[in-house]
Amino acid sequence: MAKEITPRSQDYSQWYLDIVKKAGLADNSAVRGCMVIKPHGFAIWEKMVAILDQKFKDSGHVNAYFPLFIPKSFLSREAQHVDGFAKECAVVTHHRLKADPNGNGLIVDPDAKLEEELIVRPTSETIIWSTYKDWIQSYRDLPLLINQWANVVRWEMRTRPFLRTTEFLWQEGHTAHATRDEAIAESLMIHDIYADFAESYMAMPVVKGVKTVNERFAGAIDTYTIEALMQDGRSLQAGTSHFLGQNFAKAFDVTFLNENNQKEFVWATSWGVSTRLIGGLIMTHSDDEGLVLPPKLAPLQVVIIPVPKPDPLINEVAEKLVKELKAKGISVKYDTDEKSRPGFKYAEYEMKGVPVRVAIGQRDLEKNQAEVARRDTREKEFIPLDGLGTYVENLLQHIQENLLLRSLRFRQENTFEADDFATFADILDKKGGFVSAHWDGTTETELKIKELTKATIRCIPLERKMEEGKCILTGNKSEGRVLFAKAY
Amino acid sequence: MAKEITPRSQDYSQWYLDIVKKAGLADNSAVRGCMVIKPHGFAIWEKMVAILDQKFKDSGHVNAYFPLFIPKSFLSREAQHVDGFAKECAVVTHHRLKADPNGNGLIVDPDAKLEEELIVRPTSETIIWSTYKDWIQSYRDLPLLINQWANVVRWEMRTRPFLRTTEFLWQEGHTAHATRDEAIAESLMIHDIYADFAESYMAMPVVKGVKTVNERFAGAIDTYTIEALMQDGRSLQAGTSHFLGQNFAKAFDVTFLNENNQKEFVWATSWGVSTRLIGGLIMTHSDDEGLVLPPKLAPLQVVIIPVPKPDPLINEVAEKLVKELKAKGISVKYDTDEKSRPGFKYAEYEMKGVPVRVAIGQRDLEKNQAEVARRDTREKEFIPLDGLGTYVENLLQHIQENLLLRSLRFRQENTFEADDFATFADILDKKGGFVSAHWDGTTETELKIKELTKATIRCIPLERKMEEGKCILTGNKSEGRVLFAKAY
Repeated sequence: MAKEITPRSQDYSQWYLDIVKKAGLADNSAVRGCMVIKPHGFAIWEKMVAILDQKFKDSGHVNAYFPLFIPKSFLSREAQHVDGFAKECAVVTHHRLKADPNGNGLIVDPDAKLEEELIVRPTSETIIWSTYKDWIQSYRDLPLLINQWANVVRWEMRTRPFLRTTEFLWQEGHTAHATRDEAIAESLMIHDIYADFAESYMAMPVVKGVKTVNERFAGAIDTYTIEALMQDGRSLQAGTSHFLGQNFAKAFDVTFLNENNQKEFVWATSWGVSTRLIGGLIMTHSDDEGLVLPPKLAPLQVVIIPVPKPDPLINEVAEKLVKELKAKGISVKYDTDEKSRPGFKYAEYEMKGVPVRVAIGQRDLEKNQAEVARRDTREKEFIPLDGLGTYVENLLQHIQENLLLRSLRFRQENTFEADDFATFADILDKKGGFVSAHWDGTTETELKIKELTKATIRCIPLERKMEEGKCILTGNKSEGRVLFAKAY
Repeated sequence: MAKEITPRSQDYSQWYLDIVKKAGLADNSAVRGCMVIKPHGFAIWEKMVAILDQKFKDSGHVNAYFPLFIPKSFLSREAQHVDGFAKECAVVTHHRLKADPNGNGLIVDPDAKLEEELIVRPTSETIIWSTYKDWIQSYRDLPLLINQWANVVRWEMRTRPFLRTTEFLWQEGHTAHATRDEAIAESLMIHDIYADFAESYMAMPVVKGVKTVNERFAGAIDTYTIEALMQDGRSLQAGTSHFLGQNFAKAFDVTFLNENNQKEFVWATSWGVSTRLIGGLIMTHSDDEGLVLPPKLAPLQVVIIPVPKPDPLINEVAEKLVKELKAKGISVKYDTDEKSRPGFKYAEYEMKGVPVRVAIGQRDLEKNQAEVARRDTREKEFIPLDGLGTYVENLLQHIQENLLLRSLRFRQENTFEADDFATFADILDKKGGFVSAHWDGTTETELKIKELTKATIRCIPLERKMEEGKCILTGNKSEGRVLFAKAY
């Protein structure tokens, strides 16, 4: 199986598509740009959802569900928002099909034309703020801390499974606050949750920063982002949290009476992460043998394989181990299928990214040991049966830590400073990676750099040190470095 | 608050709408027929989802996700299926909006017309079976046991929150099998899971049966249904499980090589329950004071209220109780908000259906007791503080049981046999309820009875006794009674 994967060195894009397909994560569908998320891919998403959902609830949020459709006119209410989304909308214009009178199957029934077209939500600010108008009257109704798990549609021209699809799954938080400071604090708090999730669960280090005006969410005052560096030296925007100011409150006339009985517009945030995270997970850790998953997000953490096939002695040891690992909360499977040989199974579970494989063979049992293989380094070791469960438990933790360290190291080795444009362009051209450089703060320069190098400003890192410098392109004054990269 | 609810005796439909609104379950939206599921309503759905999802997984199913959109031509492939759904489809015809050159906001961009229109899924058999064609080659690929949690859209003319909405949330299982028997067994097993969920968790008794040809799912060979009797004497179809035979396999050319290397069409089932269950839950248990929830599905099971307000002594007792109940896995809230008075809080939590209320007052504490009120019967009792936690735990179980018993009794009292048409029509006209009567087995008679009485055959009960009789309408031979009712 493994041999069917295109090596990264040969064609990184094809490698990614091979992993997605052969690890059983997703499939193309009959609908342009829409993928089918297969059971193994969906199981990873379910783990992500469970963890994030708990974090949102622990920080005071509740879930709700708003309509899939947005009346066309709602989109126009916020001027920047409509500019950002109008060009990529799936538009529902009719509500009925009928038999073609000429006998050619089904046609859209012209008598069932909608008075106002409906947009399949590309994001839900407009429909949600039109609802919040009814829910918010007084400061006592605030803050309103709501999240929804939903599908959204953006009509993308070039799509790639998980990374950019016409339909994708995500969560979108939409909160309403009485003050500017509280809304900013909310958007930063969520930004922290996203960064912590990326690092502590996905083992994917991220740079936390704020977007430039040009890269902001359409309708936001500030967009906070987490940016992760993929193995091909491109950056992935992995999650964003927006401080929306009063833009949507003004667009939908959402006001409240403050404690002094004065009418004010409500302050807003919105924030989301999506199935794109699965793309990030794949590209951060996987190798030419298949998917590599951090144990905390692996649907199956340990597989036990009898060598060459099940027998009473092997079964006894395996079943004891299964029981012990399950008691520790570890997901484990004893694969007793006799239709495939061990070598085939090894390759299959490696392909699917199962973090730990325990092979139990008759000869090993005589020596009171089993062979334990870790997916991240592909190292194998013989471990005494006595204490095997504890060994596996610790190994899972080591793998989780090692994956984060490895990707941190990769990022370190691929983050550069550039102080002149030639060096800057050369790095981006030859190696890729994050390039930290001075910029004069204008959108004009930003766009010109993009045109010349295809790199964009991924963010202004929150932790950057302020230092005077000269813009890499114009030589104009800069107050600190920003992070450039080519991006997904 | 409670006074704002229209009594059931006065206007049952308005009572339902009042509960939905005032218990904070759902709101109307700006989009025709689409509701907003509010946090309290969504929390109930989350509980339902968690329980059902575990049951599906325990019985070997995995989750996946298929596209929201279905190419128009797919719908026509299965002849009955298209008849069932073509008339209520949301149709996407364009993928872009643009500014109106005449300055009137946004218009659909005529240059962005889709080559083939896309239907927003009303159900996913067609897109899923078009995918299964690629996934199934051999008997080794079977059975394929997949479920998805998703939103679907059916353009309904008359809508009512939860019971019938243009967009709703549901799960849809789609399984593929090597044999007819295995597929039938699957659809019956799911039918059992649905019935058990309704009775053991929703405390909503159901009649298990099979649909007549006329009431079958469009494209099914057999539809198994669970039917529940609502307080107004109407039946609610609460969940259906379909044996689809080889209809979709033939429509999408999905074959497999059996163990003898012969090509066969695959056998299929599909099955679903939706947010409609929340409507059933409301109408089974609630009263004129608001929502009544079975403890197993109540987002908040116990509320503790200090009377008249928090003080150190009350806090100590309350916090101890909170800790004890949480340790028992019971969800509990100590409401220390001083802005509302106890009486207001009582009404509010009654409205929201919280099963148990514990009021802790200063004078009660002197007597070492607290007042415990149960939502189902609205009875109050003073309970010694010593053992209060255990009492509450047992009370929750009693409430769960009492709700089932109460609704079973209601159904018994409202299930009738009728042996002549006059009696039959009179029962349906005056009392409603389930009417068990003989029918000659023809669609013609079924439709005629519907025309005359508005009642439909809800199901042919699986447990009916076979007895010869004469059709209530035509006098023709019947082999057993079927269950009639007016339905939602």
